[in-house]
Amino acid sequence: MDERRRIPQATVRRLPVYLRDLTEAAAHGVTVTSSSEMAARTGISSEQIRKDLAYFGAFGTRGVGYDTRLLAAEIRRILGIERRVGVALVGAGHLGFALARYSRQEHADVAITMVFDRHPKVVGTRIGDLTVLPVEEMEERVREAGIRMAVIAVPGEEAPGVLAALARAGVEAVLNFSPVALSAPGVHVQHIDLTLELQSLAFFTSLRQMAGAAVAEERA
Amino acid sequence: MDERRRIPQATVRRLPVYLRDLTEAAAHGVTVTSSSEMAARTGISSEQIRKDLAYFGAFGTRGVGYDTRLLAAEIRRILGIERRVGVALVGAGHLGFALARYSRQEHADVAITMVFDRHPKVVGTRIGDLTVLPVEEMEERVREAGIRMAVIAVPGEEAPGVLAALARAGVEAVLNFSPVALSAPGVHVQHIDLTLELQSLAFFTSLRQMAGAAVAEERA
Repeated sequence: MDERRRIPQATVRRLPVYLRDLTEAAAHGVTVTSSSEMAARTGISSEQIRKDLAYFGAFGTRGVGYDTRLLAAEIRRILGIERRVGVALVGAGHLGFALARYSRQEHADVAITMVFDRHPKVVGTRIGDLTVLPVEEMEERVREAGIRMAVIAVPGEEAPGVLAALARAGVEAVLNFSPVALSAPGVHVQHIDLTLELQSLAFFTSLRQMAGAAVAEERA
Repeated sequence: MDERRRIPQATVRRLPVYLRDLTEAAAHGVTVTSSSEMAARTGISSEQIRKDLAYFGAFGTRGVGYDTRLLAAEIRRILGIERRVGVALVGAGHLGFALARYSRQEHADVAITMVFDRHPKVVGTRIGDLTVLPVEEMEERVREAGIRMAVIAVPGEEAPGVLAALARAGVEAVLNFSPVALSAPGVHVQHIDLTLELQSLAFFTSLRQMAGAAVAEERA
């Protein structure tokens, strides 16, 4: 349990990248692969890959490499997704609709399996093979289904109440697309914040260099 | 210019968090603040905050703290967003619609200012105060407007062509919501990948502990 705390979040976020790479390599008939080959395919350095994997034990054989399928299975086990994991989505507006449809199309090992919304006009409509359920039933249905993960795609003012209800229902990890910071005891919240993403992205354009020229001179 | 390469991406991604915190603190009348206070409000450690800011020079006065508004202005300059930065959005489906509407509502310093789509039914429709333009005009319009940033929200099979056109138009940084990895010379691409987000999120639930029990025993 405490193991989860010691492992850098950045490492955890790279594991699915490795998993995807190994799954694709295996599908192309690659039975054995090395951290250098993985580095070439993923753009992550081989040192970083070896360091990340070392948190979870010794994989592969020195001078030979990793068994592609075995390492993929190990990573699935580490993440806890070797069986299909169901996710509740709250908010079936444009964003929620897009997320649910995408998740269903991908047939992923972690997929949205329940959708809730508060608007009577939206409740009962279908997104692929899912029917949108009333948010009033969320807490009970999520608890009964034993769902531990959720995606929040509701307006900012509704998000704290939604998170509190999800926490009561036993949800432990949440992907938050609403434009407010959220937290609840015992719940790991990952925030996808468009404003922050765009602001940090600006750093990588020459707009910054033009704008930053004065600052650079000041310090020179 | 090379400065951008030496600074960890994680640091760049935290700068907007600091900026938001300082802006909110200033709005609440806080004129001077410390890294400890910022840590308490943001959940990022004060050591990390001081380390991140140190990449860009010496801010604040030891024993006194940071001038809230001045530090916010410095971070805006570092990011290159002290003037409003325009962003092109490609793809006005459900996801694109949600992103554009959100961006316009926020009145952010980095905002979607042009929207393109390939579907004749969507072209000409409005998202808030923006009119969806035909994707055929994208390259020319983005170049003429001098836009350096874009958001890609098109299906995976269309995304590489869109990125190539954006690169030709002079775009330097892209937020990619399409479900494929993208790259182009001279373009910084940040990928928001729902599958990967959900997979890494699973690590933080007890699903993983149940599933991982066998592995842990095996290694003990």
